Amino acid sequence: MERSGIITLLTDFGLSDAYVAMMKGVIFSINREAALIDITHSISTGSVFQGAYILRESFSYFPAGTVHVAVVDPGVGSNRRSIAVKAAGHFFTGPDNGIFWPIIERYKDTTIYELTEKKYFLPQVTSTFHGRDIFAPVAAQISLGLHIHQLGRVVSNPEKLEIPLPFKYDNTLTGQIIRIDNFGNLITNITANDLAGFLGNNEPVIHTGKIKIYGLSKIYSDRENGELLAIINSSNQLEIAVNMGKASDYIGKERDDIIGTGVKVEKTG
Amino acid sequence: MERSGIITLLTDFGLSDAYVAMMKGVIFSINREAALIDITHSISTGSVFQGAYILRESFSYFPAGTVHVAVVDPGVGSNRRSIAVKAAGHFFTGPDNGIFWPIIERYKDTTIYELTEKKYFLPQVTSTFHGRDIFAPVAAQISLGLHIHQLGRVVSNPEKLEIPLPFKYDNTLTGQIIRIDNFGNLITNITANDLAGFLGNNEPVIHTGKIKIYGLSKIYSDRENGELLAIINSSNQLEIAVNMGKASDYIGKERDDIIGTGVKVEKTG
Amino acid sequence: MERSGIITLLTDFGLSDAYVAMMKGVIFSINREAALIDITHSISTGSVFQGAYILRESFSYFPAGTVHVAVVDPGVGSNRRSIAVKAAGHFFTGPDNGIFWPIIERYKDTTIYELTEKKYFLPQVTSTFHGRDIFAPVAAQISLGLHIHQLGRVVSNPEKLEIPLPFKYDNTLTGQIIRIDNFGNLITNITANDLAGFLGNNEPVIHTGKIKIYGLSKIYSDRENGELLAIINSSNQLEIAVNMGKASDYIGKERDDIIGTGVKVEKTG
Repeated sequence: MERSGIITLLTDFGLSDAYVAMMKGVIFSINREAALIDITHSISTGSVFQGAYILRESFSYFPAGTVHVAVVDPGVGSNRRSIAVKAAGHFFTGPDNGIFWPIIERYKDTTIYELTEKKYFLPQVTSTFHGRDIFAPVAAQISLGLHIHQLGRVVSNPEKLEIPLPFKYDNTLTGQIIRIDNFGNLITNITANDLAGFLGNNEPVIHTGKIKIYGLSKIYSDRENGELLAIINSSNQLEIAVNMGKASDYIGKERDDIIGTGVKVEKTG
Repeated sequence: MERSGIITLLTDFGLSDAYVAMMKGVIFSINREAALIDITHSISTGSVFQGAYILRESFSYFPAGTVHVAVVDPGVGSNRRSIAVKAAGHFFTGPDNGIFWPIIERYKDTTIYELTEKKYFLPQVTSTFHGRDIFAPVAAQISLGLHIHQLGRVVSNPEKLEIPLPFKYDNTLTGQIIRIDNFGNLITNITANDLAGFLGNNEPVIHTGKIKIYGLSKIYSDRENGELLAIINSSNQLEIAVNMGKASDYIGKERDDIIGTGVKVEKTG
Repeated sequence: MERSGIITLLTDFGLSDAYVAMMKGVIFSINREAALIDITHSISTGSVFQGAYILRESFSYFPAGTVHVAVVDPGVGSNRRSIAVKAAGHFFTGPDNGIFWPIIERYKDTTIYELTEKKYFLPQVTSTFHGRDIFAPVAAQISLGLHIHQLGRVVSNPEKLEIPLPFKYDNTLTGQIIRIDNFGNLITNITANDLAGFLGNNEPVIHTGKIKIYGLSKIYSDRENGELLAIINSSNQLEIAVNMGKASDYIGKERDDIIGTGVKVEKTG
């Protein structure tokens, strides 16, 4: 497959330390012509789930042949495997801890290799920073055309990630909040498809905590300033928002407790 | 006009989500050779004014032929227009909500087009993320040489932005604080020119809240550590600062209430 | 020396303002082909020490011939010198305030020049933003091949930085905490070498505040979740960490007071 020459980076490292910059230095030392793009470095510490979701939502906006490095790696240095994945015309490298599972599960043509060929790593591999010592140099090599089967042996049983799915029961579709974005929007695991299949020609009533919203809005400004609304967002997910405000302020829980909160949809004729 | 191949991005999206990265992926899918530079993604949610000011202060440091994407867009999906602007040898694209007004107003050679040609957008345009679906692909096309008149129809009445200007009354020049920077510096809308025209050969006394500063400093360390001072900053604006400290701590208001605070200049012989 | 075409940036400017973007615009106006990498812009305001440490830890991961711009510059506009440094096959430019001292001190082949040739600066140099007006254009020129001796006169007495070193007394090796990273890890100035020389075949007991840790871990998950541990980190420093937690929460001081806290190592047979 052609390489795009682009390498994206997603980590929980933050931007205050030089960890991300060290990874970029290592990549440039191998492929000076790479284009480096940060997806985000603000994943909550160790949240493989959050990293997995954001990666799945965003990777396909990049050209085919892009290499995506994802390092949310609480088990660094333990016996968890390091892997490279080819799926949907893209390449991925990072720990085998479920961070790539939503992508592996979704695409049929996936191939996965464990990284065992040490000649593609930095000469000295520390036990605490595989992002710099293993994944950055491997990503740079792949971006130059290395085939991932050269990196090691096939993996047939990658680590899975438990992904909460919405379910129907009686006349209710129940999902949950899986992410809060920078605008305080509450993003659920209920997709536009889930909702259409459930509702048919009916209108939804959406409940979460003390919030109750009638109907779906097409745009944020369908409602008055400060008013709650439900909308299908730009990633095709049901989202609870406030026009010119933050829905996260309305849910009566601390920000960190909001993730996982149930969202119930009922239908009215 | 020649294109520089550079595209800058200014939004209120923050860096925790993948929204900015999705825009960059879309751009690279159209122009792999673009150089992408973040101006900032920390504009306060929906603050068109803040975005407009920062864009006007910074765009001209880039080479002519650069494309600047500015998306502070609380009206996304409503009937506000999407536009592309050519001014001062640079290109701009974003919502027609006043964010480009300080630039449009200032430069004589401005041309503005509404984005109506859907063939330059992503195939599916959502109602909540025009940054990714419209402005990113349009910017990429412009960076490759597309003429902005190909994008749609001329706009002769762009949205304006109310820009507070300083005014003289009796022996006082009154302006206001329009920005607080990362160093806690209080940046006013009084320019070096305004001040020179008002003062002549006199010395200023600068008042804001309980603060009273005699004279202008040339450099921060003209005053003792911790002492308040007034200075003409690197963007030619009157700025209130503290040597080795934060002037924002001295004004006795919450950070968000400081913007708009009046600043009075008197003159002493 | 060959140039890599890469320019890194390290400042205390934060990312909310457009200051960093202005520097990048200036660089691109001189060298459109430069690759620009942020090391970090989150250095605590005015902390030359923090900037110096992070620069020394990270610069060598970049290819030889890279230019590193470091602007933590509380004395901007005063009579502190502006310098360019060549050391260890890399170039550096910024204020002469000690920020490059850990690198100058360590490498034998260092040459240093004061920036006096104004033709390499922006035409108008302000007294408050040398990052944009002096260091960015100088870095761009160096990245294009300018020899640093063309920039001005030799500096033989660069500003030093007081660097705390660990010391042995009786049966104790005493160092201090010099940095807290994004993971709450407490990073000390005790290196793997210091520790090996002190311990010989003995095991360490590590004390700081109320913390007491027996032995060194090889990987974070050597200890139970939530348990304190000591480890040699990816930069060869003794680090105090918590598996799946933040060691900074355990030290019983405010975050800003932790830097400088003593760390004692004893040995047990």
